[in-house]
Formats: sequence, structure tokens, C-alpha cells
Amino acid sequence: MALGADLGGTKINLVLADQAGRVVSQVIQRTEAHLGLEAVLTNLYAGIRLVLQQAGETSAMADTEDIRGLLQALRQQGKMVIGLGIGVAGVVSQSDAVVQEAPNLDWRDVPLRDLVAARTGLPVWLENDTNAAALGEFWYGAGRETMNMVYLGIGTGIGGGIILDGKLYRGCSGGAGEIGHLVVEPLGPACGSGHPGCLEAMVSGRAIARMAREAAAQGQGPALLQLAGGDLNRITGETVTLALKENDPTALAIVSRAGAYLGMGLASVINLLNPALIVIGGGVAESLGEPLLKAAWPEVEQRAFPGLCKPVQLVRAELKGNSQVLGAAGLVHRAGLY
Amino acid sequence: MALGADLGGTKINLVLADQAGRVVSQVIQRTEAHLGLEAVLTNLYAGIRLVLQQAGETSAMADTEDIRGLLQALRQQGKMVIGLGIGVAGVVSQSDAVVQEAPNLDWRDVPLRDLVAARTGLPVWLENDTNAAALGEFWYGAGRETMNMVYLGIGTGIGGGIILDGKLYRGCSGGAGEIGHLVVEPLGPACGSGHPGCLEAMVSGRAIARMAREAAAQGQGPALLQLAGGDLNRITGETVTLALKENDPTALAIVSRAGAYLGMGLASVINLLNPALIVIGGGVAESLGEPLLKAAWPEVEQRAFPGLCKPVQLVRAELKGNSQVLGAAGLVHRAGLY
Repeated sequence: MALGADLGGTKINLVLADQAGRVVSQVIQRTEAHLGLEAVLTNLYAGIRLVLQQAGETSAMADTEDIRGLLQALRQQGKMVIGLGIGVAGVVSQSDAVVQEAPNLDWRDVPLRDLVAARTGLPVWLENDTNAAALGEFWYGAGRETMNMVYLGIGTGIGGGIILDGKLYRGCSGGAGEIGHLVVEPLGPACGSGHPGCLEAMVSGRAIARMAREAAAQGQGPALLQLAGGDLNRITGETVTLALKENDPTALAIVSRAGAYLGMGLASVINLLNPALIVIGGGVAESLGEPLLKAAWPEVEQRAFPGLCKPVQLVRAELKGNSQVLGAAGLVHRAGLY
Repeated sequence: MALGADLGGTKINLVLADQAGRVVSQVIQRTEAHLGLEAVLTNLYAGIRLVLQQAGETSAMADTEDIRGLLQALRQQGKMVIGLGIGVAGVVSQSDAVVQEAPNLDWRDVPLRDLVAARTGLPVWLENDTNAAALGEFWYGAGRETMNMVYLGIGTGIGGGIILDGKLYRGCSGGAGEIGHLVVEPLGPACGSGHPGCLEAMVSGRAIARMAREAAAQGQGPALLQLAGGDLNRITGETVTLALKENDPTALAIVSRAGAYLGMGLASVINLLNPALIVIGGGVAESLGEPLLKAAWPEVEQRAFPGLCKPVQLVRAELKGNSQVLGAAGLVHRAGLY
């Protein structure tokens, strides 16, 4: 078995998973990134202890609070934990296993592998969280049957991961797969990184919320404002999801517009990479995936070559919130094979 | 030595090249695609005979007109020709070496490898012409030092080829690398394939000529109209190149606009693929490369992540008009290695 961790700014998702990607035990641990690195690591270790305790026979596990002790107790029960994979929302340097930059965690140059390996005694693998999600879907989810797959995670922002000829494609300096920053509207508003009219600026949860606030400010979509208790600033992506369920035409127009831009980004990806499969995951895709994809497909068909559209399958992620964490555990099981 | 051929709608470029990509002999043979497949093949064989004759000692070669005879005569002079690589502007099926579709040649499902192999007795390799150009620059030109390279050919249209981790990337059905069809202006005019506002529709030779005609029709750029002899319809990409040499402000504005769109397309490529090198080739890049790239770079810097811009080099092709044909000859020398 292998441990997988998905390390975010507000929570840590932890699993113990077998080689087939089946979850043996799982813990979601709150964390507060603003309290600093040590606080997050303390939460991570607490989560690891919990997920290990859950996996063992209660009597033997209750005695020990120490991770090394818990691992040994599990071994004596015939349950071998062979390593820990961690997905982090940030830039990971593979050569020295350092988190170079993780804005949500406010980390810079954190030698996470070595810190966690020293504390747990386990071999540790690190990966960017969206790459981990792509690998999770590739190994255990929607991408099991394919060799050329693009993963697009639509949440507050948009991330991506690219599997080409059966391997994770990292690019020349490890930064490939920034699908969220394909240009789709030259003079559009900027994303959080300052890129005007990129996919993230036009389709992400943050973009959808912005369009909803703009519409409500112009007196359109009274339902949106009402659902947000009359406060413009409380309109979020979820507000749009709720309004859409009530068939609000403004919410539908916003999601259709975002979906059309999604289609343009997908057309660019298809023309460039000719993938067999595109997997759409992330929180926004879970709540708005169907109307987004419905609006996206006509744009794809108009803008990508028929010969490239025909072989491509456009599907939703299968592992839902666990794409990242199962990919992270898979880093251990598949070490050297990706 | 290997033969390389670049098969276009109006000419066939032929070389005999050694393993280092040095040209031993070269012939440019006119052809007329509208006369049909047999006429083009007749021109191809005539070109092959000429390029072989040039490579041998005159006395021995003059006796024979037959390709097999010429190959044997060269062998007797210690000059071994081991195969023929052909680049074609079209969709090539690698599994059966058939040209599925080549609009400029008006071909559909032509089993070119088998036809030419039967006639010449040589082993024959087929490749899409822009892929051949990418491989030519990768093996013998601007890409010799790199493993992750994108080739962009800007001519009448725009084609591309992608080398990832040292191999030509073809995608799931062989159609990858259509960089010309990245979306850059959602509501822009359509390219020849009907894709609105793709890179080809905004930056190609045809697009630049269109912008120049539009400007001249509105009374802007009198120099453009004058250079075209007062006839709007005779304004071409070359007219813009000429006007630019005379510092015509309208021509400069047109090229700057095209260059800005080129920058958006390059930003998308850089964010997605994190290449070490982007090589720009093709006829338009040869005549307008400098002002296009000058206008492109600020857009790249604004729209791509600094960490991905820093490692990327943006350079002009080194082999100029021979990228394709040397790549085609390289298919033979490097068979199985790409």
C-alpha cells in the first residue's frame, strides 16, 4: 500500500491506497496555510497518523501515536506501506524534490521531500497537484484505456496535465501543461497571473463569479442577487450553480459564454496535441460540467479539424475529488514508470 | 547518402544528402498538380534522375536514363544511395504510408510509398512536409542542441511540427502539430479550413495580404496600392514586404498586428508545452521574420509565465528553404530513431 496526500491551502486530503488505486482508508485534515510551514506539516503528520490508525486493527494501533510505530504495527499485521506521494499546488523541482513556489501555501523553496522523509522514515515522491490529478485519472480513472490524454482541472483557477505516449509530459523546465493560460480572448480581463483573456480568465470559478457580479451590477439576473442575499460581493460560482438549477436565464447565458471559451481552448489543445482523450475535472466541472461541455462542443467542432475531433473523447473525471490524492499514491506504486 | 523530396503543388525540391545533412546535389523541378497524379510522379522521377546524375561522374552517368541504372552506376563509384524520404503537404497515414489527403496536390488516398518504391527500387519513407521541416531543423539546423522543440512554418498557410523529448510527436491519429489553428481571435475571419480567428487566419501570408487589401480599399497605405500597380487584387504578402522596406507606416501596422497575434499563439504554445526552443521557418518568416518576432515578443512576455519564457529560445530556421527536404532525407538516415 502507499500513502497519498493532496496538500492545499485549507485542507489536506490523505489516503492509503492499494496498487489498483482502491482507497483503504481516507482522512480529510483541516489546515491553515497562513500559520506557516510548521503548522501545515503538523497537520500533515496528524493526518498520516489518523489514516494509518484507520487501516490497522484497533487494539494494536491505539498504543502508539508515532508514525514509525504505526507503520511497524501495520507491517506486523501484514500491511506494508511502501511510501508517500504528495501533490502540491505549486511548482515542484523534480531534480531536488523542492517546492519552488506554492502561492496558496505561501511557500518558497521548501525541501518538502527531505523534511517529510526524515520525519516519517518513508520514501517520499512530490508532484504538482494537477499533474498528480492527470496521473490519477490516467492510472485509475477515466484515462485507463488511453496513451494520449489531456487533463483539465477547472476550479477557482484552471490547471492541466498532459500524458503523451503513456508518460507525463513535463517540458524542458518542468512547467508544461498550463492549459489554463491558453489565449482565447486577446483583450479579455486578466487572470490572477496577469494574463489577459486566457482560459482561466474566461472559464474558471473565479471568472464565472466575476461575470455573474458584472451581470447583477447591471441589473440583470435578479435571481443571482437574491441568492446572494442582496449582496453583490457574495455572488460566487456556487450562486451561479444554484441559479442555473432554477433555470435562471442570466446564469445560463454566463455558463454558455464560459463554455464557448472552454470550447475554444479545447479546440487549440486538439489541433496542437491530437489527444485521444480529454478529461475534465475540478470543482467547477463537477457542479457545472454538463452545461459547460454542452456549450463547448459546437466551438470545438467549428475550430478543430474533423480528423482530430473524431478520435477525441471528451469526458468528466471519474475519481472526482480523489484524482489528485490517488495520483499522488500512484507516484509510489508506479515509481520509474511515468 | 539518401534522397529527399519535398513535394508541393507547383514544385518539387530534391536533394541527395549525406548523414550529416550536407547537400551533395540538388534539383528544383517544376510540376503542375492540376495535371494529375501521373504527371506529378513523372516530374518526381525526372527530378530524381537529375539529382542522381549530378552526383556521379559525368562519363558514367550519361549512358543511362533509368533510375535503377543510375543508382547502380553510383554504387560502382562508391556512392551508396540507401533510400528516399518524401515530405508531402498533406495528411499522411504512417501505418500504410498512404497520403490520405493533400489539398494542394488534389490527392486522396494515394499509396505513394508503394508506387515510388516499385518504380525506383528504393525503400521509401513518407512524412507530412511540416513534420519533415521540424525534423530537418532538429537534426541539422537550429534545433541540433535541444530535445523539446516546436517548429512553426509561416508561409501561405501555417503549419507546425513538435519534437518532444527528442521524438516527433504525432498524437493519437497522426495529426498533432496544427499550430496554425490555435484560436487567437474568437470572432476573427476564417482560415482556408473555416476556423475563425486561428493563427493561420491572422498571421499567414494569405492573412497579411488580406489585411493589406482591406487597408488599401479603405484608402490607407497608398504605397501598397502603388506597388501593386493600382490593382487591389494584385496586393500580396510580397507587396507588404516591399512597402515595409520603404518604411510605409500602413505596412508596418499590418505586420505589427500580425506579429502580436503570432505572440499570442506562441504564448499558448509555451504555456502548454514548455519547449526549450521555437524555430520559425517558411517563406513569410524569411521575408518578414524580424518585424514579426519583434512585435510578437511583448505579447509572449505578457501572456506566458516568466518561468516558461525564460528557458525558451525563439529563433529563425537555419536551413531556410531546405528544412523540409533535408528532414525528408533524414527520415532515411535516422529510420527508427524518431
